[in-house]
Amino acid sequence: MPVLNETHNPDLRSWVSSANSPDTDFPIQNLPFAEFRRKHSVESFRGGVAIGDQVLDLAAAKGVFSETAAIGAQACTASTLNEFMSLGAPVWSALRLALSRVLRQGAAEQSILETCLIPQDEVEYSLPCTIGDYTDFYTSVFHATRVGSLFRPDNPLLPNYKWVPIGYHGRSSSIDVSGQTFKRPQGQIKAADAAEPSVGPCKRLDYELEIGIYIGVGNAPGEPIVLDDSDQHVFGYCLFNDWSARDIQAWEYQPLGPFLAKNFASTVSPWIVTNEALLPYRAEFKRDAADPQPLPYLSSDSNSGEGALDIKLEVLLQTQQMRNRHESPAKLSESNFVYSYWTVAQMVAHHTVNGCNLRPGDFFGSGTQSGPEHEQGGSLLELSRGGKESITLPNGEQRTFLEDGDTVVMRGYCETEGAARIGFGEVASTVLPANS
Amino acid sequence: MPVLNETHNPDLRSWVSSANSPDTDFPIQNLPFAEFRRKHSVESFRGGVAIGDQVLDLAAAKGVFSETAAIGAQACTASTLNEFMSLGAPVWSALRLALSRVLRQGAAEQSILETCLIPQDEVEYSLPCTIGDYTDFYTSVFHATRVGSLFRPDNPLLPNYKWVPIGYHGRSSSIDVSGQTFKRPQGQIKAADAAEPSVGPCKRLDYELEIGIYIGVGNAPGEPIVLDDSDQHVFGYCLFNDWSARDIQAWEYQPLGPFLAKNFASTVSPWIVTNEALLPYRAEFKRDAADPQPLPYLSSDSNSGEGALDIKLEVLLQTQQMRNRHESPAKLSESNFVYSYWTVAQMVAHHTVNGCNLRPGDFFGSGTQSGPEHEQGGSLLELSRGGKESITLPNGEQRTFLEDGDTVVMRGYCETEGAARIGFGEVASTVLPANS
Repeated sequence: MPVLNETHNPDLRSWVSSANSPDTDFPIQNLPFAEFRRKHSVESFRGGVAIGDQVLDLAAAKGVFSETAAIGAQACTASTLNEFMSLGAPVWSALRLALSRVLRQGAAEQSILETCLIPQDEVEYSLPCTIGDYTDFYTSVFHATRVGSLFRPDNPLLPNYKWVPIGYHGRSSSIDVSGQTFKRPQGQIKAADAAEPSVGPCKRLDYELEIGIYIGVGNAPGEPIVLDDSDQHVFGYCLFNDWSARDIQAWEYQPLGPFLAKNFASTVSPWIVTNEALLPYRAEFKRDAADPQPLPYLSSDSNSGEGALDIKLEVLLQTQQMRNRHESPAKLSESNFVYSYWTVAQMVAHHTVNGCNLRPGDFFGSGTQSGPEHEQGGSLLELSRGGKESITLPNGEQRTFLEDGDTVVMRGYCETEGAARIGFGEVASTVLPANS
Repeated sequence: MPVLNETHNPDLRSWVSSANSPDTDFPIQNLPFAEFRRKHSVESFRGGVAIGDQVLDLAAAKGVFSETAAIGAQACTASTLNEFMSLGAPVWSALRLALSRVLRQGAAEQSILETCLIPQDEVEYSLPCTIGDYTDFYTSVFHATRVGSLFRPDNPLLPNYKWVPIGYHGRSSSIDVSGQTFKRPQGQIKAADAAEPSVGPCKRLDYELEIGIYIGVGNAPGEPIVLDDSDQHVFGYCLFNDWSARDIQAWEYQPLGPFLAKNFASTVSPWIVTNEALLPYRAEFKRDAADPQPLPYLSSDSNSGEGALDIKLEVLLQTQQMRNRHESPAKLSESNFVYSYWTVAQMVAHHTVNGCNLRPGDFFGSGTQSGPEHEQGGSLLELSRGGKESITLPNGEQRTFLEDGDTVVMRGYCETEGAARIGFGEVASTVLPANS
């Protein structure tokens, strides 16, 4: 079991009363980081911490911190969190502990810090850091098998899958924060019965339900990060929607992988839930007895014991019609990051085993997190069985893939015996019509 | 024919006498940009221009420029060229014209500028800009066919190849400048006759002879760059060695493409030869009559007429033994960028057709530039026919793939009737032993 500390105590209460609500994503046990400013302002973006329905402005609050925590808070005043992320786990941890103490009921700092709170309703977010490189993994064996059976019916799960944490490089320029809108992509599409491809708007636009992982401390070229050191390198987690154009993908992806099918937009939730905040939700890393044992660089007793993360995930859809009628988003599916075939530590160890260097702010997508059941599919490609079965929404609308005006919302939270419930907030983004 | 101007006049001579040597890469018609500082110094890197065997230090020289050229020269004083690249073709062009005039024989600025020259022998280089995203294309149909026949003997050239400028995302963190050394990568390798993979040093380490392309001006998300506008966006070119671990690649690359086989190191030549300097070497873009016509977004009269670039390329190898004996590098192959199946304008138009945004400093690799003949292979994988035939070097050493201590050198130059010869300098980098 990972070593918990006083910040994880489920009995802690904050003087910010909304943080004590049983259904808040942001109790005092969470303390995630984002870059924010007041809506419609020309203020600089700066680091903040979520507490209940408020943001603690670290640029305003930094004076209450001392020693190591003060170094961390000062770094958070920048317009990206890269410097803070680069300072390492002892600094992240010191600031978390200090935040927990000053935000607790009875803290002497309450009267000062009350002036440093801004309601989350009144702020807007930017990407929390400059993402140098983005790598997308493919860690759900259920997703890989179901998608593989659609693209390659005779050969759904390739022989390398249970040995190699499959990943590929993605594009960082088009990653944006929740609220992102994007035009339906155009591209080359070849219908199965057509002799030649043609160019037009994507007809099979899809989302992918992923966990995003931010690297804090990188490694020097040629110096791999060993599995058991990954907690010193992983800063935190978010929700991640890796938009996908399935028809463009089907025509372009061989032999070098997805390209234009993926690089038009990808959306992160604004808050980074820290690796430390997630320690109580570490879970057993399960393998079927028939599965191969991970190779030595992907294996350790400590990682195998508690290497997975129990993060409950859900995808919702709000169509234009629902928005017009003020209807809430409809749930499409639920899943859990615990189903991942590979742990984050294994992703880090694999990514660097060849000497590849990671840098502060680098980003991993987990790959679509589908569960074992059909209903737990993390994409419409899966839920609609490759577009063959349409999904009926509660208001009677139907979908196989996404329509213009659709907003996809993803949420995630952790809840386990003996720990506070903490949440990720949400990532929501909307499809606009293609260029005409 | 592209519109040339006075800077392209082959009769121009410089007061820097080494620039008038018939075999220099850097006559006054070239004027490429790099980031440099004095060797073994703690100076800041800053922009410079190559002239003969000298570097013109733009931070020192900026006072001689006026108006638009002065804006460009000021931007070049930064430690990366990103800002200069973002200023656009009119600024790039104004600075080039001003540089050409002040470096010509008889220029009044000679005495001032003589104090702003530093011998290239006395400087070191950094990456010329921050590369946000790196995309690797696959534009040599000869490379694609030969490599395809090794990986997929029954299906060497996939049906999409002649329609789609195939590309995939690469990793920018491990791109470094000529002089880069890197440890032989370790990774999962599965021998054809083995039941399971194992982990160890790459045994099939290879280079790839590529042209690198720097984007100057990007595009907004959702706003594609049309083919005929590409000259407003492409800043310049370099030589590029995209190191590849063939055995790691063979096991990992399906279904999402190469990953650890490519991301341990990639090396650029220090000088960016500008798009404008290369105008005299534009060449006809040739297709076989049997090849499909490019789709409309990849086609235009102007591009088809003079869309290719005649850049002569060569790869050389200097082994540890050669270095010990002070022997020159041995030539492995020659090729030409003119063989590329897709033009740079087509790469730009394709990359953005889906709305993907490019940013200043983004980088494309052309893919391995192999010519039609076996001897023109741009990788050892091709020259050794998949490792089946070893290559005998002039000193008697043999290679199928690279050995520790091998230095791979790539050179490139342009030479055509009625224009000055201009060159790219070289990219050289060396394989170190794997971690033990």
